[in-house]
Amino acid sequence: MIAVCGAGQCDGGIAALAEMVGRGVAAGGATLVCGGLGGVMEAACRGARAAGGLTVGILPGADPAAANPDVLVPIATGLGEARNAVIVSSAEVVIAIGGEYGTLSEIALARKLGRPVIGLRTWDLGRAPAGDPHIQVVHSPDAAVAAALAYCKRRV
Amino acid sequence: MIAVCGAGQCDGGIAALAEMVGRGVAAGGATLVCGGLGGVMEAACRGARAAGGLTVGILPGADPAAANPDVLVPIATGLGEARNAVIVSSAEVVIAIGGEYGTLSEIALARKLGRPVIGLRTWDLGRAPAGDPHIQVVHSPDAAVAAALAYCKRRV
Amino acid sequence: MIAVCGAGQCDGGIAALAEMVGRGVAAGGATLVCGGLGGVMEAACRGARAAGGLTVGILPGADPAAANPDVLVPIATGLGEARNAVIVSSAEVVIAIGGEYGTLSEIALARKLGRPVIGLRTWDLGRAPAGDPHIQVVHSPDAAVAAALAYCKRRV
Amino acid sequence: MIAVCGAGQCDGGIAALAEMVGRGVAAGGATLVCGGLGGVMEAACRGARAAGGLTVGILPGADPAAANPDVLVPIATGLGEARNAVIVSSAEVVIAIGGEYGTLSEIALARKLGRPVIGLRTWDLGRAPAGDPHIQVVHSPDAAVAAALAYCKRRV
Repeated sequence: MIAVCGAGQCDGGIAALAEMVGRGVAAGGATLVCGGLGGVMEAACRGARAAGGLTVGILPGADPAAANPDVLVPIATGLGEARNAVIVSSAEVVIAIGGEYGTLSEIALARKLGRPVIGLRTWDLGRAPAGDPHIQVVHSPDAAVAAALAYCKRRV
Repeated sequence: MIAVCGAGQCDGGIAALAEMVGRGVAAGGATLVCGGLGGVMEAACRGARAAGGLTVGILPGADPAAANPDVLVPIATGLGEARNAVIVSSAEVVIAIGGEYGTLSEIALARKLGRPVIGLRTWDLGRAPAGDPHIQVVHSPDAAVAAALAYCKRRV
Repeated sequence: MIAVCGAGQCDGGIAALAEMVGRGVAAGGATLVCGGLGGVMEAACRGARAAGGLTVGILPGADPAAANPDVLVPIATGLGEARNAVIVSSAEVVIAIGGEYGTLSEIALARKLGRPVIGLRTWDLGRAPAGDPHIQVVHSPDAAVAAALAYCKRRV
Repeated sequence: MIAVCGAGQCDGGIAALAEMVGRGVAAGGATLVCGGLGGVMEAACRGARAAGGLTVGILPGADPAAANPDVLVPIATGLGEARNAVIVSSAEVVIAIGGEYGTLSEIALARKLGRPVIGLRTWDLGRAPAGDPHIQVVHSPDAAVAAALAYCKRRV
C-alpha cells in the first residue's frame, strides 16, 4: 500500500502531478491510501481509478460521505488530524506532493514510524538528520512511482 | 460498508456463522470492514473473499502483516483499542457476532455514533434504553445479512 | 488515577451520587480523570474540586474551553469517541455511574484493557464472562470509592 | 497549557535548555504538557516540578508507569505516535526544542490545528508558508517562555 499525501487544496500543476502519480501507483498494482479529501488527494484518487486501481481514504471526520468521489474505501475515523498517523502507518511508503502543514506532519510521522518518504515538489527538509537515506527527492511523477513501488511488496 | 465485529478467538460454531455472514455481505455487494485479526474477523473475511468481496481490516497495531490472510486492505492504525471506534465509525451498520469485551465496546460505540447494530448470539443488552429500535437481535446469518444490507447504501 | 464515567446529561439523583464519588476520590488522594463534559462528569469534578482534588478532562473535541468549569487539566484530544479508550487506559480503575452507550463503551474498553470496573447504578452486564471478578457492583458512593481506592496505587 | 516538545534522547546542552524552559513555564503559572517520556520531555518536567508546577505526560503506550518521574498526570493513551496530535491539540502554544522527526510532526500538527509554535534550536522550516507569523524562532529559554506565556490564557 502506497500513501499519497498533499494538501486539500492545490493548484492545477500540483494536481496534474498527483493524478499522474495516482495513475502510476495503480498501474503498478499497488493500493493507494490517502486522506480522502480534495486537492492532491482527490487528484491522486482520480488517477488511480482511471487505471482501475483500489483507493482508500482515511478521513478526519466521522462521515464517509465527505470522501472525494474516487475513494472506493472511505474510512471515516472521527480522529481529526490524528488520522494522519493512521495514513502513514498503513502505508509501506509515502509519496509527498506539494503540501502544507498537514503534509509536513505526514512526512515526519512516516519517518518516525520508519516508513520511507518520496518527495515531489514538497517541503525541503534541509535539517533532516544527515544521511537519512529514507527521504528521497524526485523530480517527476514517474520517478516518484518507481521509487515507491520499489518499497511496496504488497500488491492487490 | 458493513462492519462485522467479534472476538479474536472463537469456537467453530461461531466461526461458521461469521463465515456465512461474510459471504452474505459480499454477495450483497457491500464492503466488509472488521478488526483484521483472527476468530470472527478472520472467518468473516474468509467468507467475504470466497464470494469475491472486498475486505478491510482496521488493525490495532502498526504492522500491516498482522492482518489475517483474507484482508485485502489492511489499515495498520497503531491506535490500540481506540481503533474500535474507527471500525464502527467507518461502517453504515454493525453486525456483532458472539464476542467478548472488545465486541461489547464496538456495539456501544456504534450506538453512540448512531450506527445501527445487528446482534447474532452476542451480548444481551437487557438494559439498552427502552425502545432503542436500532439494536436488532437476529437468529441466523441470513437474517443478519438481510437486516444489515437494508441499512447499507454504499455498494462496491 | 481513577476514572469516573457516566453520561453527559443525567438526573439530579445520579448527579448527587457522582458528586459524592468525586469528593471521595479526591479525599482519598487520587487524581480524578473523566470525559470532561457535563452531567456525571461535571458533578464528579465538582465534588473532587470541593475536596481540593486534581481533575483531568479528556475531551472529544479540540477545544479546551469545552471542559466543565471544574476540570483543572483539560486534554482536548480531537479524537471524537475514540477518546473513551484514552480515558480508561489512563486510569488504574474505572467507576461507572448510570450512563448511556458512551459509558457502556468505557466499561467494555476498560475490561478489554485489563482495568477493573466498579459499577454504581449502571449497565447490568448479565452476560459478562462468568466469574469475571474485575467487575464489581456497589450500591453507594462510599462503597464505590472504597473499592476504587483499593486498586489505585498512584496518589497525588 | 503550554506544550514542550522534543526528542526522547538529547545531549546535555539541549536538556539544560529544556529544564530552564520547564522552570519558566511553571514559574509563569502555566501547566506543562509533553509526551511524558525521557530527554527533552523529562528535563522540562524536572524544571517545572522544581518550580512547583503541574506536569502532564501524554504517553504513546497504555502503561502509565512509562512516564518520567516528574510527570504528575500521566495520560497513557495507547495511541502510539497519533498521541502527538493530542499533545499539541491540548496546548494553547507549543515550544519545540531540538528534536527529531517526532518533534517535527508536533510542529506541523500544531500549525495545522492553529496553535502557535516557538522554536528553540529546532527544525529550520525554511519553506514554511511565507509570512506565517505563528512560528517564532527564539534563542534562549527565557525568550521561549516569554513568547509562550503571551499566548497562554489558562493559568493554574
